[in-house]
Amino acid sequence: MKKKNKKVNAAILIIGNEILSGRTQDKNVSFISNWLNEKCGISVNEVRIIPDLEKTIINNILDLSKKFNYVFTTGGIGPTHDDITAQSISKAFNVKYEFHKEAFRILENYYGRLNFNDGRKKMAKMPRGSKLIYNPSSAAPGFVFKNVFSLPGVPSILSSMIENCKMYLIGGLKIYSKTLNLYTVESNISQKLSFIQKKFKKTVDIGSYPFFRLGKIGVSIVTRSTSTIKLKRVNKDLIELAKDKKIKILKI
Amino acid sequence: MKKKNKKVNAAILIIGNEILSGRTQDKNVSFISNWLNEKCGISVNEVRIIPDLEKTIINNILDLSKKFNYVFTTGGIGPTHDDITAQSISKAFNVKYEFHKEAFRILENYYGRLNFNDGRKKMAKMPRGSKLIYNPSSAAPGFVFKNVFSLPGVPSILSSMIENCKMYLIGGLKIYSKTLNLYTVESNISQKLSFIQKKFKKTVDIGSYPFFRLGKIGVSIVTRSTSTIKLKRVNKDLIELAKDKKIKILKI
Repeated sequence: MKKKNKKVNAAILIIGNEILSGRTQDKNVSFISNWLNEKCGISVNEVRIIPDLEKTIINNILDLSKKFNYVFTTGGIGPTHDDITAQSISKAFNVKYEFHKEAFRILENYYGRLNFNDGRKKMAKMPRGSKLIYNPSSAAPGFVFKNVFSLPGVPSILSSMIENCKMYLIGGLKIYSKTLNLYTVESNISQKLSFIQKKFKKTVDIGSYPFFRLGKIGVSIVTRSTSTIKLKRVNKDLIELAKDKKIKILKI
Repeated sequence: MKKKNKKVNAAILIIGNEILSGRTQDKNVSFISNWLNEKCGISVNEVRIIPDLEKTIINNILDLSKKFNYVFTTGGIGPTHDDITAQSISKAFNVKYEFHKEAFRILENYYGRLNFNDGRKKMAKMPRGSKLIYNPSSAAPGFVFKNVFSLPGVPSILSSMIENCKMYLIGGLKIYSKTLNLYTVESNISQKLSFIQKKFKKTVDIGSYPFFRLGKIGVSIVTRSTSTIKLKRVNKDLIELAKDKKIKILKI
């Protein structure tokens, strides 16, 4: 994978009524986001979850593909009537929705000519000019069109395919992260924390998240930066803050 | 809670870098979505996850509050520097960001006058004219401003508060749902399914989701409708489809 010496970002677009209705707990957001950051130095800056409606998909694809370097869609590329991601992306970019020759061959081989029915054939249709994202677990490939990557919604299949996205991505600076767990409440450290955030305003992002562990309350201070040196410096300040306030640090 | 005899919708806006980065697995989307549908007859039509950036929060609040009947935000109402939801909503609607008298009293009582520091006081600041969402587990209230409901990000605190949103909501038609689990693959039933969906085009929403259970592959057919009669009818058709194709139905 090529890399740029600057920040590269992405959005994730989860397409599917089952996630919106609360029936299914999404697992793809944290998986894709972690993978993009760890393996590619790409940070996810926005996620949207939308229903299987053509107009909604089109509007979101156009909006997100303009705003971010990459868009990852999940869901809606299977054989059933509610799988309308590929045709919606074709319409969004005003290109033909047609059989991709290689995808057609892959699926025909996988199912055998006699069992290759219309539903299965549908999975070979995509926007003209798409490149394939190979699928080692269930054959039906995902596709890349412009800066939009379309993957299936089933987490186990998606995760088996994700490495095959790499060849189409140009990565950026990796964001390093450190977590310091303090046995205190947020409101006890908020002022000092705000002071430290100001000191590292442009280089480190400090987040503060309450946690509960074995009946005790604590705060996880998560620091994120493209510079490991700044990350060390900010964590030195945080440890000093804990010492000053006599706060116990939880070692995990 | 008042009810309307029509569909009422909502969007969820998750504010927080920890969800975007993949560090924390979101649990609030499925909880809020299920609660809204089950208890209020309100369906969630869009979810967005965005970072703790003022401009991003403002743009999304304005956009979603226009498009949907209600917006539920989670996260960013605590005492630390990265909690900027309340001031961002004030800016979005161009109203003062100021102390809410009752919220101030609640928090002062909870912490005691001596321990009521600036970080804690910050949690009593909200857009002028906000109404409070009481918090039985950690005192700091959420707030409602116009059609925007602001709740904390910690799932256990959020869930303790959700019932207190009810008095500000006007509910709609409940969406009923049935799931039929078939031991088959999607591509085996996709054509027939599409035919059934067309038959119930305007009244029932049919979704198809692969599942894996004890090494076997199956498809969950989820039907959703505001009419229980139509739901029964569509499920009769689906059971016939299974019989025709000699597909085993999984009983759970």
